[in-house]
Amino acid sequence: MAKTDLEIAQECVLEPIETVAAKVDIPNDALEHYGKYKAKLAFDLIKELEKNKEGKLILVTAINPTKAGEGKSTTTVGLGDALNRIGKKTMMALREPSLGPVFGLKGGAAGGGYAQVVPMEDINLHFTGDMHAITTCNNLVSAILDNHIYQGNALNIDPASITFKRCLDMNERELRQIDIGLGAKVNGVKREDGFNITVASEIMASLCLASDLMDLKERFGKILVAYTYDQKPVFVRDLGIEGAMAMVMKDAILPNLVQTLEHNPVLIHGGPFANIAHGCNSVIATKTALRLADYVVTEAGFGADLGAEKFLDIKCRLADLHPNAVVIVATIRALKQHGGVAYEDLKEENVEAMLKGCENLAKHIDTIQQFGLPYIVAINEFVSDTPEEVKALQEWCQANGHPMALSQVWAKGGEGAIDLANQVVQLCEQENDFAPLYDVNDSIESKIESIARKVYGAKGVEFTPEAKEQIERFNELGWNDLPICMAKTQMSLSDDGKVMGRPTDFTITVRELRPSLGAGFIVALTGKVLTMPGLPKHPSALDMDIDANGKITGLF
Amino acid sequence: MAKTDLEIAQECVLEPIETVAAKVDIPNDALEHYGKYKAKLAFDLIKELEKNKEGKLILVTAINPTKAGEGKSTTTVGLGDALNRIGKKTMMALREPSLGPVFGLKGGAAGGGYAQVVPMEDINLHFTGDMHAITTCNNLVSAILDNHIYQGNALNIDPASITFKRCLDMNERELRQIDIGLGAKVNGVKREDGFNITVASEIMASLCLASDLMDLKERFGKILVAYTYDQKPVFVRDLGIEGAMAMVMKDAILPNLVQTLEHNPVLIHGGPFANIAHGCNSVIATKTALRLADYVVTEAGFGADLGAEKFLDIKCRLADLHPNAVVIVATIRALKQHGGVAYEDLKEENVEAMLKGCENLAKHIDTIQQFGLPYIVAINEFVSDTPEEVKALQEWCQANGHPMALSQVWAKGGEGAIDLANQVVQLCEQENDFAPLYDVNDSIESKIESIARKVYGAKGVEFTPEAKEQIERFNELGWNDLPICMAKTQMSLSDDGKVMGRPTDFTITVRELRPSLGAGFIVALTGKVLTMPGLPKHPSALDMDIDANGKITGLF
Repeated sequence: MAKTDLEIAQECVLEPIETVAAKVDIPNDALEHYGKYKAKLAFDLIKELEKNKEGKLILVTAINPTKAGEGKSTTTVGLGDALNRIGKKTMMALREPSLGPVFGLKGGAAGGGYAQVVPMEDINLHFTGDMHAITTCNNLVSAILDNHIYQGNALNIDPASITFKRCLDMNERELRQIDIGLGAKVNGVKREDGFNITVASEIMASLCLASDLMDLKERFGKILVAYTYDQKPVFVRDLGIEGAMAMVMKDAILPNLVQTLEHNPVLIHGGPFANIAHGCNSVIATKTALRLADYVVTEAGFGADLGAEKFLDIKCRLADLHPNAVVIVATIRALKQHGGVAYEDLKEENVEAMLKGCENLAKHIDTIQQFGLPYIVAINEFVSDTPEEVKALQEWCQANGHPMALSQVWAKGGEGAIDLANQVVQLCEQENDFAPLYDVNDSIESKIESIARKVYGAKGVEFTPEAKEQIERFNELGWNDLPICMAKTQMSLSDDGKVMGRPTDFTITVRELRPSLGAGFIVALTGKVLTMPGLPKHPSALDMDIDANGKITGLF
Repeated sequence: MAKTDLEIAQECVLEPIETVAAKVDIPNDALEHYGKYKAKLAFDLIKELEKNKEGKLILVTAINPTKAGEGKSTTTVGLGDALNRIGKKTMMALREPSLGPVFGLKGGAAGGGYAQVVPMEDINLHFTGDMHAITTCNNLVSAILDNHIYQGNALNIDPASITFKRCLDMNERELRQIDIGLGAKVNGVKREDGFNITVASEIMASLCLASDLMDLKERFGKILVAYTYDQKPVFVRDLGIEGAMAMVMKDAILPNLVQTLEHNPVLIHGGPFANIAHGCNSVIATKTALRLADYVVTEAGFGADLGAEKFLDIKCRLADLHPNAVVIVATIRALKQHGGVAYEDLKEENVEAMLKGCENLAKHIDTIQQFGLPYIVAINEFVSDTPEEVKALQEWCQANGHPMALSQVWAKGGEGAIDLANQVVQLCEQENDFAPLYDVNDSIESKIESIARKVYGAKGVEFTPEAKEQIERFNELGWNDLPICMAKTQMSLSDDGKVMGRPTDFTITVRELRPSLGAGFIVALTGKVLTMPGLPKHPSALDMDIDANGKITGLF
């Protein structure tokens, strides 16, 4: 029987974190240890590094995800290990997993097989407490806000207008919509509320786009929490708690250093939702890694239509990052699903369906080309892939002029991505003329249309009357010069999750806009976006255990 | 202007935690570092220590708290420092502060002035994440429980009977009573719920009474969460998640090592509410400290009627601990309040009122005598105390045969408690015949009556019809052989918080009983107990800040 990711991770003899740190010249006294194998990089080190020259930045993205899986995180880790194997001083910058899904279905987000980040259990549980700090920071806002209303409401806040929700790092469908302040009058003001999962909190998005603690404090101050009875926006700074919030985040703002199974350094820091937020690890982690290593491999959530677009249009724009190459991950299984094969039939060879599914891949390649970036297709191989399928895919890439590499990182670790690594190094040598897809000074409508047409391949965008009204209001309030964060299903290029492959002749409907002024973008919602997941019928938690020696089982 | 506790703490040049650990022979490789000045003691060390001989155990308790303050934590820290100064190898074992009150009014719980534990900011903020782990562990139960009902309710749970609440480490009056699962059907089962503050969670009480991780897992399994439609109790073990819960707590179960301003070792671990729970730090921390040091100073919440009674009747009984001496802390200011002086008039000399207030002190001394333990009264001196007041108090102690020491630990640290320390060492040399006040095999009614008569000085106990019915039910379910955890106002010996001094001729009314089967006791509620505090009109959070160098202000 194949080993589980946890079993593979548990077999690894980890190196002390100071040994891993030394590989990128981090001295031991610049580490804030969290046990023997995790450390936060000290505040002083991060400041001192600002003078360093930055290395090459490689983004790993993917086709639209399917149930078959693409292995984007696994490829990111494997590529980082492979670059180290061919002698390139390389770090990885990844997102922190959320605890909620760990107890549900999904489990770990730290790679898989022999391309993993360890200590796997700690990374997937409390890690260094960043998620908990975000939860606390978020709920401090809600507590102070409701208390303000209860204690006299000097700001004249309309409780029905509150836009800022509480949060928990747990899959809690029962908390999506709740009534609070019930019972006696001393239980506060009665109103409707709801909880988001922590990664969907604007605190998380703000953390991930902040340049330092003072910038984060300023972003917190800008967060919109409600409106007054006479329709004026109320911000966190009106409540006067951005200082306390920054204090709560004093450690959470420092990136976390861990290692791959091959003992290469990885920064794991921040993990905002890739729908209502931008879905990439923190700017601080990416920049710090670029100043420590010659190559940095990072990833963005979901497919290139969501994660990569936001990485390039939001994160790179706001943080002045210039990527050098993009890796687009696909699997033959997932391509077959995009070509119309049902999940149950994926084991059967089907070259025709795979080639049809390549249309989805082709659109994401087109998107990366529009951003002006060199790219390579990485095919994450599965044992079920047939030689005919592999050959046909190689021919398709060659015929269309797409650089391509096969990778076996799940089974072989870095050894399985040597070819990919060598090609990526070549791409990074090319000059590129990267630019975001739209000008932030364009109108909100025009920015959304640019994304829909250029990235999704839509023929246009429809705005509901509610959305039009909001845009008008945002224009009046001066919130029109921010980048757009699209909230769209990740399953399709369109806004209908059932449409696979490469749809044409469709429009995108924008139903609602939400200002994330602390993060610094406007969210455009194209459908119902769930910001609090639920647990499945048989949650993973039921199978988890720990024995008297502290050995964990059942964590995926 | 006098320095704040935070300013004094920030002036301290801390020793590396490995240096502090070495003072009680803890090797560096037995530390799990959390930064440079905090560490968890490794699992293997704790196991290995089990063979060690145990040191002397000193409990610090107090008179009934008043607005004037007693300085119990400050005395605990100062006494520990003083014992070290007179050459005794001493550790302290304290409770972890809760974040909720930090943002509200109360602030730190790690001593004050020159008798503090540091790093003060970290201890009062996220520390090593124990509170967050407890919050997660608690809310995992709720998420799995509601999901079970939503996914078919195989256990036939009556949603209206659910006794287990969600929790947050935040003062959130609006979450005391809420309706959840509102809106669409996919938002789960609609029902009434509420949040406790994390320290009021049974997860916290269970952690603090557990002997090790496997014992904790078993305790989790025993926690009552609801009843079935046919009135059968449903436990966590029926949901099958005690393994996942223990996994979540794998680090939180390890005690945290920090230092006093005088660099002496302190374990801070666990901090259950002193009303619906037993209000002392973890058994694991106390036992570990006893195996590392010759003297261990610890404290229990509120006055001797609550904290000390529970420490002695619950914690010492369940953990087989044998205390050697008790320190009863009082201030002249607080005694005057018990003698009838209003808070505003405390600055004025009032020997008569102080002597009247000594009645309260006398009752707590009587309680400690009933437990068969040697004791000393520690008067925590204030600048406003007059020579006449001090002299009268010394004479009162002498006339009544009570050992007594003045202490100035706030202003002088350990140097201010040398006399107290010397007297405590003498007390520890005495043989004592400590025994709990009641037999656990007595009836629930009889156990409660023992506490009310012997500890509170009540003439009897009345049980409401609801309480009587519950007792009958608990007897049938076999929950009658557990110790009792009284939930009573801390402000008075009676169950009326406005009655100060030493009331007589009163009865205690028990309104409700709650089984805490994981913790291992039955809670008897004598009034409305708030398990979720609210924020004041001007919460401390509004005055907190952090600057670009990471320096914190406004944290008390």
